[in-house]
Amino acid sequence: MVNKKEIQKQIINAVETVKQTNPVVGSITNAVSINFVANAQLAVGGSAAMVYLPEEGEILAGLGEATYINMGTLIPIYEQTLPRVAKLLHETGKHWVLDPVAIGIGSFRSQVLAQFKEYKPSVIRGNASEIIALAGLWGLEGGSGKSRVRGVDSTDAVVSAKSAAVALAKWTGGAVAVSGETDLITDGNLTVYSYGGSHLMEKITGGGCSLGGVVTVYLAVTAPLIAALTASAAYNLAGKIAEKEANGPASFQICFLDELHKATAEEIAANPFEIEEV
Amino acid sequence: MVNKKEIQKQIINAVETVKQTNPVVGSITNAVSINFVANAQLAVGGSAAMVYLPEEGEILAGLGEATYINMGTLIPIYEQTLPRVAKLLHETGKHWVLDPVAIGIGSFRSQVLAQFKEYKPSVIRGNASEIIALAGLWGLEGGSGKSRVRGVDSTDAVVSAKSAAVALAKWTGGAVAVSGETDLITDGNLTVYSYGGSHLMEKITGGGCSLGGVVTVYLAVTAPLIAALTASAAYNLAGKIAEKEANGPASFQICFLDELHKATAEEIAANPFEIEEV
Amino acid sequence: MVNKKEIQKQIINAVETVKQTNPVVGSITNAVSINFVANAQLAVGGSAAMVYLPEEGEILAGLGEATYINMGTLIPIYEQTLPRVAKLLHETGKHWVLDPVAIGIGSFRSQVLAQFKEYKPSVIRGNASEIIALAGLWGLEGGSGKSRVRGVDSTDAVVSAKSAAVALAKWTGGAVAVSGETDLITDGNLTVYSYGGSHLMEKITGGGCSLGGVVTVYLAVTAPLIAALTASAAYNLAGKIAEKEANGPASFQICFLDELHKATAEEIAANPFEIEEV
Repeated sequence: MVNKKEIQKQIINAVETVKQTNPVVGSITNAVSINFVANAQLAVGGSAAMVYLPEEGEILAGLGEATYINMGTLIPIYEQTLPRVAKLLHETGKHWVLDPVAIGIGSFRSQVLAQFKEYKPSVIRGNASEIIALAGLWGLEGGSGKSRVRGVDSTDAVVSAKSAAVALAKWTGGAVAVSGETDLITDGNLTVYSYGGSHLMEKITGGGCSLGGVVTVYLAVTAPLIAALTASAAYNLAGKIAEKEANGPASFQICFLDELHKATAEEIAANPFEIEEV
Repeated sequence: MVNKKEIQKQIINAVETVKQTNPVVGSITNAVSINFVANAQLAVGGSAAMVYLPEEGEILAGLGEATYINMGTLIPIYEQTLPRVAKLLHETGKHWVLDPVAIGIGSFRSQVLAQFKEYKPSVIRGNASEIIALAGLWGLEGGSGKSRVRGVDSTDAVVSAKSAAVALAKWTGGAVAVSGETDLITDGNLTVYSYGGSHLMEKITGGGCSLGGVVTVYLAVTAPLIAALTASAAYNLAGKIAEKEANGPASFQICFLDELHKATAEEIAANPFEIEEV
Repeated sequence: MVNKKEIQKQIINAVETVKQTNPVVGSITNAVSINFVANAQLAVGGSAAMVYLPEEGEILAGLGEATYINMGTLIPIYEQTLPRVAKLLHETGKHWVLDPVAIGIGSFRSQVLAQFKEYKPSVIRGNASEIIALAGLWGLEGGSGKSRVRGVDSTDAVVSAKSAAVALAKWTGGAVAVSGETDLITDGNLTVYSYGGSHLMEKITGGGCSLGGVVTVYLAVTAPLIAALTASAAYNLAGKIAEKEANGPASFQICFLDELHKATAEEIAANPFEIEEV
């Protein structure tokens, strides 16, 4: 039987350890939200470093305590960078987070994402359509060969991605976070629902990407399920408060990052969530 | 005889259709303001997707309801991406917006912009110096072979680009928007002047680029002239309000995006403009 | 004997000349903070233009009144762009600023930075660990062959980089700015300490990068030591005020840019600093 208090203790521990140790996390991420990703990582207490080149990605993979790979705005050199870095992370047993953003757009993206199956990312974060499409690409239960990703948006509800998320987590041995109105996080044994957030998060670019970046920061100090849940809870808490203070999407983003920075370990652990066994 | 009320009805229709249908628009745009472009597109109700690679550009060109090509911060792969995407857009009769930013800097930029003549962008948006230089490059009336673009800035007044704008619009069969203190928008038959805005828009980077991105969103649902006018009116309205609330350029940008998001169809249609026949 | 009043007069002159002449400065800078760099340059009165390609970098080097090269997020084409642009700047006697960010990560970065020794940047700006590592790479006094850069962060105190900074400045004949709680700026003869700023500057990405961009704007109109001191003083002043107004790191960045824009020449010159002869 899972104990909610035990999970809250682990969340508190993750948040405080990050604030005390300022872990370095490397990221290979898209140009649209790269600044938001870095600022969100700094806001929670991490140290952000972004690179594009294969050798530099490998160095950061070794140096960083966890690594983030986000598939947006691919450039030609990624043909070398992405497989080499993911392979190294896998072979050295280093934790990493995958955001399969825009899965379905282009053969190169599909090919890299297919390769990633064997490199088993510790956490996969995406919207419902992306998670279903990735499970489909990897030939897992709950997946669909037909991507319903619409540009970078989801056309599916979070719950509809549950079996895909569980299958992906069972394959990787890590966790999967499906972002939406209610966030679903699972490690294949437990499924946790995290509540809160704001509809304004959809009106700014990079909400999901920066969440992936913050998951990576917590992954530097805790297990995949707790890292994904801690980041989601922090986002849901900060988003809920920021919505009340905001005058529109841009002031929402500013308030959100301020609140993300101010949120204490106890507040993040107290953000509403529910657990069910798979 | 043109009826102002009729144009206002079309503006209202464009704004509301975007809010209801959340059109996907693809963008190939510069690194400096890529985040601002995406956030401005989301603020008015669009769905933003940015890519760099040729195949992905072609997919988005097919998938998106309109496409934005902005010539800033060129990278080597654009040698393939830009002509291939523009050609496909033209051949499939898909609408697209061109921002010839920094025209005159480098032979590659000139060469791509020269190629674009035959692919006839539905809307061209630039400052006065850029519009004059593009007409010059394309050998059209009102153009000048000698670019007076200063880095990314204009050294010419908006009115001095009028004949170049009209000639470009007549060539493409679409519309041209010349941004400045007063914006001039023409489709070669009608010229519309849109008033408002703020001097602080010059003190933030990407004002013009993000305007091009928002023109693209409206172009997904309406004709070139109305798309360009609607976006310019929304910018002039939001800029005017934001200037009053702002404490400097950075808070101006935040207020501006908030106001852009809040602006109703009626408010945008009521923003002052004047029409003259060419 | 150095006269503090004389230096203040030169600061006032630099700030006012920039506001009056709006100098164009070209930048080759990283994707993470490229928007912040441009907005900071615009805030103080410069005109910002960013490029990636070799030919465009050379054109801007000729056109711009000073050029900024920041070593973050390297891409393959930089193998051509960076040496060609730096060589041209040196050969034509044009002023430029180098930010050796993330020195130590990757052989390509080290190789380019080693090449830059002969192209003598007018100003080098970095944190203490970066300055010590660069002096080490160039075989100068105070340097260390072993980089203590941690990702993009410093693990050394500003004062510990003093002899490295002096040695670098003597080599280039320009100035070196070491950023930290107190900023140290030296031209090899004089060392100036600039006070103020905010701990929140560490909680946003690009504080150092954008400072390098603003040094470049002042370098367009004044000598290296004064350019570095003026930019540092403006940052320390704006940071100190912004910290009082801010509710967290994101609102701090907004307030900071607003204050940077509003700061008068007299206020910047009055920001506390101390001079010592080397």
